[in-house]
Amino acid sequence: TKSYNITLLPGDGIGPEVISVAKNALQLVASLEGFNIGFEEMHVGGAALDAVGVPLPDETLSSAKKSDAILLGAIGGYKWDNNERHLRPEMALLHLRGALKVFANLRPATVLPQLVDASTLKKEVAEGVDLMVVRELTGGIYFGEPRGISTNENGQEIGFNTEVYAAYEIERIARIAFETARKRRGKLCSVDKANVLEASMLWRKTVTALASEYPDVELSHMYVDNAAMQLVRNPKQFDTIVTNNIFGDILSDEASMITGSIGMLPSASLGETGPGLFEPIHGSAPDIAGQDKANPLATVLSAAMLLKYGLGEEKAAQRIEAAVLDALNRGFRTGDIHSAGHKLVGCKEMGEEVLKSI
Amino acid sequence: TKSYNITLLPGDGIGPEVISVAKNALQLVASLEGFNIGFEEMHVGGAALDAVGVPLPDETLSSAKKSDAILLGAIGGYKWDNNERHLRPEMALLHLRGALKVFANLRPATVLPQLVDASTLKKEVAEGVDLMVVRELTGGIYFGEPRGISTNENGQEIGFNTEVYAAYEIERIARIAFETARKRRGKLCSVDKANVLEASMLWRKTVTALASEYPDVELSHMYVDNAAMQLVRNPKQFDTIVTNNIFGDILSDEASMITGSIGMLPSASLGETGPGLFEPIHGSAPDIAGQDKANPLATVLSAAMLLKYGLGEEKAAQRIEAAVLDALNRGFRTGDIHSAGHKLVGCKEMGEEVLKSI
Ligand SMILES: CC(C)[C@H](C(=O)O)[C@@H](O)C(=O)O
Ligand SMILES: CC(C)[C@H](C(=O)O)[C@@H](O)C(=O)O
Repeated sequence: TKSYNITLLPGDGIGPEVISVAKNALQLVASLEGFNIGFEEMHVGGAALDAVGVPLPDETLSSAKKSDAILLGAIGGYKWDNNERHLRPEMALLHLRGALKVFANLRPATVLPQLVDASTLKKEVAEGVDLMVVRELTGGIYFGEPRGISTNENGQEIGFNTEVYAAYEIERIARIAFETARKRRGKLCSVDKANVLEASMLWRKTVTALASEYPDVELSHMYVDNAAMQLVRNPKQFDTIVTNNIFGDILSDEASMITGSIGMLPSASLGETGPGLFEPIHGSAPDIAGQDKANPLATVLSAAMLLKYGLGEEKAAQRIEAAVLDALNRGFRTGDIHSAGHKLVGCKEMGEEVLKSI
Repeated sequence: TKSYNITLLPGDGIGPEVISVAKNALQLVASLEGFNIGFEEMHVGGAALDAVGVPLPDETLSSAKKSDAILLGAIGGYKWDNNERHLRPEMALLHLRGALKVFANLRPATVLPQLVDASTLKKEVAEGVDLMVVRELTGGIYFGEPRGISTNENGQEIGFNTEVYAAYEIERIARIAFETARKRRGKLCSVDKANVLEASMLWRKTVTALASEYPDVELSHMYVDNAAMQLVRNPKQFDTIVTNNIFGDILSDEASMITGSIGMLPSASLGETGPGLFEPIHGSAPDIAGQDKANPLATVLSAAMLLKYGLGEEKAAQRIEAAVLDALNRGFRTGDIHSAGHKLVGCKEMGEEVLKSI
């Protein structure tokens, strides 16, 4: 029988609670589908800062690198908010992404019929939204050099960062996006600011050049300011969106809020080879941590993405996705997605209902 | 009697139609309030490219610089979309902003009770939204050097831009924002990405340092990804937002779409001294240009901002604002904001109704 190693990074806040639910779901589908999973649980983020004084300990990184896939809970909390930059929990995430070279961040934003009322958008605007943001994750202004805070010739303090993309970085993320669009509804919208930024001009040129290899995919381009508007005006116009690191950070969060159910949304970060990093898109929610109130479904669905994209275990992934829908159909809701006529449950109970459905 | 010079820049697409309406409104309030306005109409954008081959002719810039204020219609169109960067209509806008040193871009996003249904957000989320985005307009990644497209040591093409802010640039825009918040509901939210970018760390530090001078203003900070979400989740939480050039580009467009009535929203760009630049936030809408379908109210309200911020003629400004509301209350609507039970009118007729109301 096949056997996989998964590094679990529960992290901070509600991280441990949601990871525990997802771990149970992974274990159950593994036994049903006839493969083994070995788990290694490691510190990351604030938890690692408290335990060993750095946000990403060497042991954590080497466990992650050796694994077949990584499942992360959440990172950060008020406690570490005033730390210096290199001692902030979020740095673990940036270092992990860089070290694992997971340049492709897939962030679906889907409005489930069961949860359409959770959106702040009118029902007719929200229903049926099903889009995927493909965000470049290891380049651009997040990693560009030079960067820093220094003093200029006039004695003025200046803060600076570099937005920079090489053609090969754009090409490889564009390929993932074209492939993704091909498996979806065949529409790809590349978002940039090519009317102002040279980095965006090269982005647009490179994406456009690739289009001839994907004649079945309909490519369009949109400026980032317009994309931020169109997501509010008519999110259904989008199928797959591809964009750079910082625009992807902003637009994928906007898109996820449009669904109204951030507690439901998973993500996958993939490289050319090596393990992928899978995590819910929500944060560590320190205000409800430890109270059994968190919605574990985003992490459970991240585990499904892990099975599909990370291990190639499509059937096991589908089992988990179906179980999540089944638990919703049977009326179970955590607080964040609860509405009249449904059964309010905590994190653990939601986890048990998912296990039953599996 | 006082006398002012205004440079009119109709520009492209629907620009000339909406500027003509706003000019009539300015002329009428001037005569009622007892001051004179001399108008100088100049080419800009695509119109200037067609006429003299550059997007911002020297005559246009010198007229603008000598004026007391500038009113711009709209810039751009399909026709010039494939021009090289320096021959694109939008370059006129960037050059104008830089040359006039109008570093403070004020962009209100207000949901009028008369138009709450135009928003794609649920009524209870949209109604009462009244926020102001104060965007830094002459710095950051829009103007930062080095920038360009070149080849790196590995023979790879790279595109790069520099996000850079000096402390004084942050301080002067933050001052405008604090003053703006003080005249509104006393709440200022500064938006940055200080968990990743050094330029944002300096931004946050500088804004925070200024807060002690404005004890009556409640200052908060938000990451840009979260701000993009919160604008969708609960836009009413915001009063005044201050942010850098590129984040302001994205968030102000998102905020304006949340109101659902982009055809209604004005903007002002102000410097320390010298004339301000006033323009509707909508584009040139080439698809409806010349068809008398455009909504002139955003330009009319930009003229009101011009009177208030540009000339200090508060009473004349209020007269125009009141007239716009009155025309709406009397049931007149252009196509973009029309709904059942209202009178559908074209651009010219809407202009005449505003004049009647004045
Ligand atoms: C925590 C932060 C560094 C991170 C990012 O900006 O990438 C987060 O917002 C995300 O989107 O995963
Ligand atoms: C046309 C473009 C250069 C401009 C900008 O990005 O500033 C526009 O989007 C705006 O917001 O005025």
